[in-house]
Amino acid sequence: MTTVEQAENLILARLRNYGDESVPFDQALGKVLAEDIKADRDLPPFNRVTMDGIAISFKAIKDGINTFRIKATQAAGDEPVEIDDLNGCIEIMTGAVLPASADTIIRYEDVEIKDGLASIDAEGIKQGQNIHVQGIDKRLGEVLASAGQLVTPAIIGVAASVGKTHLLVKKMPKVVIISSGDELVDVHEMPSPYQIRKSNSYTVKAVLQQHGLQPNVLHIPDDPEVTKTQIQHCLQNYDVLLLSGGISMGKFDYIPQALDDLQVTKLFHKVAQRPGKPFWFGQYKDKVLVFAFPGNPVATFMCLNRYFLTWLNATLGLPQQLPVYAVLDSDFQFGPALQYYLQVKLYSNTQGQLMASPVEGNGSGDFANLADTEAFLELPLERSEFKQGEVFKVWRFV
Amino acid sequence: MTTVEQAENLILARLRNYGDESVPFDQALGKVLAEDIKADRDLPPFNRVTMDGIAISFKAIKDGINTFRIKATQAAGDEPVEIDDLNGCIEIMTGAVLPASADTIIRYEDVEIKDGLASIDAEGIKQGQNIHVQGIDKRLGEVLASAGQLVTPAIIGVAASVGKTHLLVKKMPKVVIISSGDELVDVHEMPSPYQIRKSNSYTVKAVLQQHGLQPNVLHIPDDPEVTKTQIQHCLQNYDVLLLSGGISMGKFDYIPQALDDLQVTKLFHKVAQRPGKPFWFGQYKDKVLVFAFPGNPVATFMCLNRYFLTWLNATLGLPQQLPVYAVLDSDFQFGPALQYYLQVKLYSNTQGQLMASPVEGNGSGDFANLADTEAFLELPLERSEFKQGEVFKVWRFV
Repeated sequence: MTTVEQAENLILARLRNYGDESVPFDQALGKVLAEDIKADRDLPPFNRVTMDGIAISFKAIKDGINTFRIKATQAAGDEPVEIDDLNGCIEIMTGAVLPASADTIIRYEDVEIKDGLASIDAEGIKQGQNIHVQGIDKRLGEVLASAGQLVTPAIIGVAASVGKTHLLVKKMPKVVIISSGDELVDVHEMPSPYQIRKSNSYTVKAVLQQHGLQPNVLHIPDDPEVTKTQIQHCLQNYDVLLLSGGISMGKFDYIPQALDDLQVTKLFHKVAQRPGKPFWFGQYKDKVLVFAFPGNPVATFMCLNRYFLTWLNATLGLPQQLPVYAVLDSDFQFGPALQYYLQVKLYSNTQGQLMASPVEGNGSGDFANLADTEAFLELPLERSEFKQGEVFKVWRFV
Repeated sequence: MTTVEQAENLILARLRNYGDESVPFDQALGKVLAEDIKADRDLPPFNRVTMDGIAISFKAIKDGINTFRIKATQAAGDEPVEIDDLNGCIEIMTGAVLPASADTIIRYEDVEIKDGLASIDAEGIKQGQNIHVQGIDKRLGEVLASAGQLVTPAIIGVAASVGKTHLLVKKMPKVVIISSGDELVDVHEMPSPYQIRKSNSYTVKAVLQQHGLQPNVLHIPDDPEVTKTQIQHCLQNYDVLLLSGGISMGKFDYIPQALDDLQVTKLFHKVAQRPGKPFWFGQYKDKVLVFAFPGNPVATFMCLNRYFLTWLNATLGLPQQLPVYAVLDSDFQFGPALQYYLQVKLYSNTQGQLMASPVEGNGSGDFANLADTEAFLELPLERSEFKQGEVFKVWRFV
């Protein structure tokens, strides 16, 4: 059987490039930069005053001067006003440009102003204090954020500051989520005693939305002709098909036949893992990718997080996520020769360790359990006893 | 000076309730549940077949029967078909209802079918195998997700499965983000050599959007009358005012006077922290809250994450986040008697520890540094030497 690592390698060998698009900078949150953002001026662009107070020349302090004639007041945004001699000062505001004739700011808290004169206590004043020096953060032309970075709120602010009204970002793949099976009814319908409501597609859609995708959703009835027509349409119109269910050995699972008839190449079927053992993966004309997840909700959810999102992030050019490790906080056993993805709650201890607390549900069909957990702990295939205090890789989904 | 803890307590003593609203379940992602979601049927709602294969009575195995006459085929969603005697079986599909006359499923992989007869190898077959028993996950009426939980993709799926087309969620506060200062120009404008572009408001807006808020943004020019009129309008029309800048001692900082004139009560001004020392917090008529952050981008960003989001989550009734701890990965010094929020990158080591790597910028004005970091490490007020390997609380912002 295909191992988890083999499955991942086969998937990651099929990264795609869907091109770039330009979007208004304030709508780029959560997208992936496709260009560097560079400083259009030095940062800060001028010697920037960081306290409200007075601007003086430090030479005055060395000359023993401690009372200054206020020549003018300079607000942030004003053209700088120069002092004429060492006895002069400018009242100056946070964010203002330091006049070339001054080099030191004394904050209001340390100044007494009366009759147009500012008196100070010279003790402890340092030359250059309360000035954010031009270009100290970044120089004109320096890269502030790089292609391949996820656009965060901080990067939105960076883009604003350098006047990038539009950002070039990676285009997302066109994804369709496909469910199948006549036992499924819509959310607003009352299922017969033998039916259940659709839920997987909604969960999958929500996860994709969290990652900036806008997938379409399709339900295919148990009919071989309709199945083939619909899958064919999807292969022509989407970059990725995410199926949940309909790929096992059932008599009414028309999807494997349709995929075969339509010349979708199977790359693997069945992975040595639980949940998600029947996971099927293939591609069409070296282009469209088909992730066919088992229909059980926990299996779909695990495969989506473990495989599809890993592929998506790599395809978009995000830096590879370093693995995250957590400490199992109680003994656990799992016998079968499958890599087990244990549902856990996470917490932090005062040693800075991420702790994982198992919350076992009743298998792949128990989706209610997912609402109470935060991550899957990846337990190695070759073992069956897992001890409190051991460390394993963790896949966070909340 | 107010300590960080005092500031937090004063803020958290002012939780609000903005009521509930009903939203379509598939638009509730990221909102906070204001009702419990309960099972409308047992989960699973019937004894659910989990493998494609044949349904038999286990008594047949005990009686030594290993060939079964196939009476019918039952798909998922079909009314169950009963077997008439121990020699009979039903071909049955994953997701189907277990017939009352059967209690064991043998998967296709272990069955040979020929001429309407299914032969099996009886070895290893267990009574009840491959059945997800009715109600084993949850019973009718049991709570699947609780009021106060954040709506995750898993909870969207849970809502779908129980037919909740609409969910009652907490209403969000109406928030306005206010910048001020004539030195600020719009993103599409070319600043004069003495001006800079607005950026804080965009960063703050993006953070709030990540938390499901839809804030308005307002810029107030340096004019005392306009300032007062605009602030007054905001106090009448919003639940929360988030100001950045304009609250220091500058001559053109008309906001403190306006807040005072309009009878906004100051609860604290200045917190023993860096960045963000000039942070001002107040309330209007026991109702509207005013968070006035310093104008420096890093200060605004830290205060927003550390204080406003903590207040928002508590106000919405989310369970209190347990503190997260990280290990400092190199020595660090910070002299002033202020609680320092050190910008760090985070990574996980193979002991399951969250490691924090300092990335020092050039102070509160260096917003480019935020694009490269992920969290603030909270270094205690009373110390100035911090050693590699020590553990501190961490506030993650990516």
